[in-house]
Amino acid sequence: MSEETGFQTMGRASGGGEIQPIGVGMLGYAFMGKAHSNAFKKLSYMAWPPPLMPRLVAIAGRDEAAVSEAARRYGYERAVTDWHELVSDPEIELFDNGGPNNLHAEPTVLAAEAGKHVVCEKPLGRDAAESYEIWQRVEKTGVVALCAFNYRFVPANRLARMLIESGQLGEIHHFRGRYLQEWGTTDAGVWRFDKSLAGSGALGDLGAHVIDLARYLLGDEIATVSGVTATFKPGREVDDAFEAAVQFEGGTVGTIEASRFAPGRKNSFQWEINGSKGSLAFDMERMNELYISEGTSGFRTKLVSEADDPFWSWWWPHGHIIGWGDTFVHELTHVLAAIAGQDTIAPHGATFEDGYRAAEVCDAIVRSSENGRRERVEYRG
Amino acid sequence: MSEETGFQTMGRASGGGEIQPIGVGMLGYAFMGKAHSNAFKKLSYMAWPPPLMPRLVAIAGRDEAAVSEAARRYGYERAVTDWHELVSDPEIELFDNGGPNNLHAEPTVLAAEAGKHVVCEKPLGRDAAESYEIWQRVEKTGVVALCAFNYRFVPANRLARMLIESGQLGEIHHFRGRYLQEWGTTDAGVWRFDKSLAGSGALGDLGAHVIDLARYLLGDEIATVSGVTATFKPGREVDDAFEAAVQFEGGTVGTIEASRFAPGRKNSFQWEINGSKGSLAFDMERMNELYISEGTSGFRTKLVSEADDPFWSWWWPHGHIIGWGDTFVHELTHVLAAIAGQDTIAPHGATFEDGYRAAEVCDAIVRSSENGRRERVEYRG
Amino acid sequence: MSEETGFQTMGRASGGGEIQPIGVGMLGYAFMGKAHSNAFKKLSYMAWPPPLMPRLVAIAGRDEAAVSEAARRYGYERAVTDWHELVSDPEIELFDNGGPNNLHAEPTVLAAEAGKHVVCEKPLGRDAAESYEIWQRVEKTGVVALCAFNYRFVPANRLARMLIESGQLGEIHHFRGRYLQEWGTTDAGVWRFDKSLAGSGALGDLGAHVIDLARYLLGDEIATVSGVTATFKPGREVDDAFEAAVQFEGGTVGTIEASRFAPGRKNSFQWEINGSKGSLAFDMERMNELYISEGTSGFRTKLVSEADDPFWSWWWPHGHIIGWGDTFVHELTHVLAAIAGQDTIAPHGATFEDGYRAAEVCDAIVRSSENGRRERVEYRG
Amino acid sequence: MSEETGFQTMGRASGGGEIQPIGVGMLGYAFMGKAHSNAFKKLSYMAWPPPLMPRLVAIAGRDEAAVSEAARRYGYERAVTDWHELVSDPEIELFDNGGPNNLHAEPTVLAAEAGKHVVCEKPLGRDAAESYEIWQRVEKTGVVALCAFNYRFVPANRLARMLIESGQLGEIHHFRGRYLQEWGTTDAGVWRFDKSLAGSGALGDLGAHVIDLARYLLGDEIATVSGVTATFKPGREVDDAFEAAVQFEGGTVGTIEASRFAPGRKNSFQWEINGSKGSLAFDMERMNELYISEGTSGFRTKLVSEADDPFWSWWWPHGHIIGWGDTFVHELTHVLAAIAGQDTIAPHGATFEDGYRAAEVCDAIVRSSENGRRERVEYRG
Repeated sequence: MSEETGFQTMGRASGGGEIQPIGVGMLGYAFMGKAHSNAFKKLSYMAWPPPLMPRLVAIAGRDEAAVSEAARRYGYERAVTDWHELVSDPEIELFDNGGPNNLHAEPTVLAAEAGKHVVCEKPLGRDAAESYEIWQRVEKTGVVALCAFNYRFVPANRLARMLIESGQLGEIHHFRGRYLQEWGTTDAGVWRFDKSLAGSGALGDLGAHVIDLARYLLGDEIATVSGVTATFKPGREVDDAFEAAVQFEGGTVGTIEASRFAPGRKNSFQWEINGSKGSLAFDMERMNELYISEGTSGFRTKLVSEADDPFWSWWWPHGHIIGWGDTFVHELTHVLAAIAGQDTIAPHGATFEDGYRAAEVCDAIVRSSENGRRERVEYRG
Repeated sequence: MSEETGFQTMGRASGGGEIQPIGVGMLGYAFMGKAHSNAFKKLSYMAWPPPLMPRLVAIAGRDEAAVSEAARRYGYERAVTDWHELVSDPEIELFDNGGPNNLHAEPTVLAAEAGKHVVCEKPLGRDAAESYEIWQRVEKTGVVALCAFNYRFVPANRLARMLIESGQLGEIHHFRGRYLQEWGTTDAGVWRFDKSLAGSGALGDLGAHVIDLARYLLGDEIATVSGVTATFKPGREVDDAFEAAVQFEGGTVGTIEASRFAPGRKNSFQWEINGSKGSLAFDMERMNELYISEGTSGFRTKLVSEADDPFWSWWWPHGHIIGWGDTFVHELTHVLAAIAGQDTIAPHGATFEDGYRAAEVCDAIVRSSENGRRERVEYRG
Repeated sequence: MSEETGFQTMGRASGGGEIQPIGVGMLGYAFMGKAHSNAFKKLSYMAWPPPLMPRLVAIAGRDEAAVSEAARRYGYERAVTDWHELVSDPEIELFDNGGPNNLHAEPTVLAAEAGKHVVCEKPLGRDAAESYEIWQRVEKTGVVALCAFNYRFVPANRLARMLIESGQLGEIHHFRGRYLQEWGTTDAGVWRFDKSLAGSGALGDLGAHVIDLARYLLGDEIATVSGVTATFKPGREVDDAFEAAVQFEGGTVGTIEASRFAPGRKNSFQWEINGSKGSLAFDMERMNELYISEGTSGFRTKLVSEADDPFWSWWWPHGHIIGWGDTFVHELTHVLAAIAGQDTIAPHGATFEDGYRAAEVCDAIVRSSENGRRERVEYRG
Repeated sequence: MSEETGFQTMGRASGGGEIQPIGVGMLGYAFMGKAHSNAFKKLSYMAWPPPLMPRLVAIAGRDEAAVSEAARRYGYERAVTDWHELVSDPEIELFDNGGPNNLHAEPTVLAAEAGKHVVCEKPLGRDAAESYEIWQRVEKTGVVALCAFNYRFVPANRLARMLIESGQLGEIHHFRGRYLQEWGTTDAGVWRFDKSLAGSGALGDLGAHVIDLARYLLGDEIATVSGVTATFKPGREVDDAFEAAVQFEGGTVGTIEASRFAPGRKNSFQWEINGSKGSLAFDMERMNELYISEGTSGFRTKLVSEADDPFWSWWWPHGHIIGWGDTFVHELTHVLAAIAGQDTIAPHGATFEDGYRAAEVCDAIVRSSENGRRERVEYRG
């Protein structure tokens, strides 16, 4: 489908014409598979008219009974236990990778090389090298590719980016971001604690989100990191937390942190930005709210739900808040718009280069933790 | 479909069998039509396995182009401009009335009398007399009937009810509820400002929610009201706000209020309950949070999102909040479970009797405002 | 001391001259006696230069050992067990009545008739009749008289009044005030539970504050009340709580409430005001903060501590918050300025007429509770 | 005065005897001089009976008119323009140094060497070397010495320390502390921006507080720091902010930060501590509140004002909050109790060794910022 066709489809849709379908193949049916499947179904009528109409072709997973049940649940036409079947399926035009981190690279690259557009969950790869490889190989194929840093698609975060970009905050002096959860004490043998599967712990899982959002909000690159990682649970292979002081290319300084050992913090991705003309703050547990201090006036709670707030033309009367799952509705609609040629992944969606860059920062934190030095982040490409 | 069949279907579903379908007819495609349609689609996979599988048969609305577009958007098989067609449609087994208040009575009653289960948006009727009539006539048909007071289906509210019912708060001394919005200054000629269509203003629109939730949370009846209504906008037919002191049968005293003239309050339905052993508080703008003071310990913020919190087995890992729209997912799944014989509308869903009782309280507030007396609420039936 | 002298003293003080002293006599050494004594001592250097320099002449109380200890503690020159000695003491120019409610009338009136300026704690009398009598008799003497509604002297409340008076909130549609405490379950035989000593319970103790502050903030009078009082504790003589819907002369409607049975609320005097151009909100437990919504922008937290905020020229660099006790520093400095002729009690301080008017509203609530009618508040004088 | 005498005085005081006086000499009359003078006056009756009764003998400052006015305002018997006069004054038994940082060393040391007890504002010296020198020389004299880290004397902070010490939080995994202010954009030629007078900027002024409180709350030492300092204002000699990742000896990791460039943050000293059994959080702008998550229950707001909360036996009924200035009342009473032999400075007050240790951490941050390495903090002594 050419971009032009996509755009015309859009035009026809509002006029009542047919919305062109796009075949979707999903890898994974657990947490992310569920979140993305919900989003594809919900955007079909909520982000109306959608740029393309998702057709849920197939879903892949290793447990045959479970993946069959998932297919039935979400309405995929078929369930497969080998993801290669998704790659070879000509009816699949968009490959969505919600599998564990060790399954990000190969399926995503092969799908792209098979000409499918790709969405890949974060972190892109398990380290910078793997992420770079994914990016480079997918880049060559020319398909549309998004690294699913969904917090860019929180309306409050999009609004924050717009305010900063417009100059309303002036020169940015500080970025402080922390992503705190509390479930690290559990001993469940989940893949997130297995280094070969996950790559890292809180760093790649939570820290990558902080890093990506920092880059997105500021439109600036992290230049140096000075940090430590920590593992609290004896015998655990991956980090439970990290702490880092950071400098951005543009002179902003701050801290980035993440932990799975913060009791009372469920999914608390908080950030604060101080500029010469004002400040912004946010907490994902209250994701509909953006805290804005115009100059030194004190923070006001803006409930980001007005008709002209980002993404809100699709939703409810103002004040009727949306949820975490809805960030994926925004994100995958954005992908469809990019495929349809109505938009581009950058700057609002995370490209695979963005995914790679976040990985470089993560790696630099690991190096800094190991060698005790402030590490300059060197970006390739 | 008998209740027994429904229950067996449920059994089969978890075992992989077919989920029995139920034909749904929807009246209205705007705010409530959108919210209910979204819920029917989303519960089909999110509240998995659903008690019955909604089949969106037809949607009715007066504007032919708009209702056709709505049918296409939400996937209804057909669009009709005369709601009588829903009533006479044999494929429709559940009639969902999301129309304006003046269209609650006749369509709902006729649908029930045609043997269809019914969901009707609140307020049930435009006054107690109309509400009573709807209740009585539908009651006689024996169909399943729910009055869509969706705030009962906020997880935090369900949890609050459970805590109170368990005796954890002791004897309840106070209920204070206020529902504040800010859009009353607008001059849009919407039906909500037309007395013949809406019945009342903030009272039936917002106040009915406060009254119903008070009754639900406390499991007690409002005995007396002493109040005033107010209209701030010159020429407006309906009330913009009301204020009332209330006494419950069980001795609880408090206030209930609503206003469309509270700038800065978008959809702020707040309540606080004080008992002899502790207190609870809530604000719909932060609907995932319940504030709990155990004894005089001070309020803690419980993010109602643990796996064992109400409705959360269907959702995400804890801390990943849900939105306003999701209350309807809970509510309509509840209706389907009742139709399938797996549950009953009461006590967690609002019956038509509940709808009528809320209307009696509203009427008593109007009388009190007019005659300046504390009005005892007399419930019929 | 003439007003002119007072004013000249002020002038000399800033130039380095002597600050004219004023002899103070205090009735009561417990809660209010402590708060007022602290204020007189602290204003002497904090509200520098004070309009007059308090000289703590004598303190009265029934328990000889306790009052002697109090004199020693706060630096009163003498302790007396009979308050008549304060009235007859020529060195006392300002009589401060911090005794229980049953000791408000006679000592205050006699002190004024002896030519002393008077401060009397709230409620002025135990009911409207007694309050009227106090006001009338003191009015005739021409002394400076303040009813100690100290919450008028919270910087955030003063600022709120200024904002409303300036028209920044537009037309005021709503006032909601509630004063919640939690200690009503205790069985201590304190005078506050004895009807003959206290007059009423939560109504006069807490409700009078809400009523006075409503009148102060809005610059408007309460026209009608519709309410109920409640006593939860068996055998208690006074009310534990009350709930009322109110109408103001200017058209504002709202609720006023108070309770001593709200676990988790320590000293939570909250109010919210909605106007056509914005809203304000406040909670005494965070008394340094005023919540301001400019139009529908959402509430911002203004930390009322800037150099140009009310009373802050006397205090610390901004952000270094003050406490509840400091409201009395502001209040008693205001009294001294009035005595010194540099200011007048009204409108920022509560006059005895204000004390009487609050009592009329309290009485009307009692009548409404008893007779079940909306009571028009009739003010005498 | 011997410690024994002091103790006996205390005994007599509660029995009605005389409270032994102690002569106080104050250096500085501006921000800190005002705060300390207020505290000496207020503790005399509020922390009743005080361990010793402060007698304000003399105050020193360079501006003769200003210091004379200060003496008159606070009630010092004399004003002097040369601080050496305080050192040589035999009536001064306690020397309180509230002067700028460059005047901390010499006057404090000489006063101690003259046999006077000493209080010195933080930071103790302008760097670790100077702080070490002060500590060592004063240590030799045997006088009572306190470094005025007043935030240890916030009731909520004292309570937090008690909870942590009791093991209620389990093993401590994280400490995050940030001290944010907003006034760094001003160009006032105050001594705080002059390197020779202040030593450093946000680091010594705000960061030292964070460091000291971290050490106090955790009862643990900072082992390493990895950080950066930043100066945003062109031409400014001192740092405007710093950011650091830290490791404690006991394995806790976290961040410490401070900035004078955070619009909307007035005096926001926030910290959060996560342990294996729960979390605590705090913000100085709401200093009466401690946020406590017992396990993963979610944070409750404990209003630290109950009769059995730290320092609250001296204050008001619970819920009647205190202010920033009152932390000095607690702190200086603590000093008097130590002088009277009723208590010791450590562990609740900061000793000069504590002052030195904070300076070592500050210096390590400067070194880390300059050399790009994680710096191990080496403590002497």
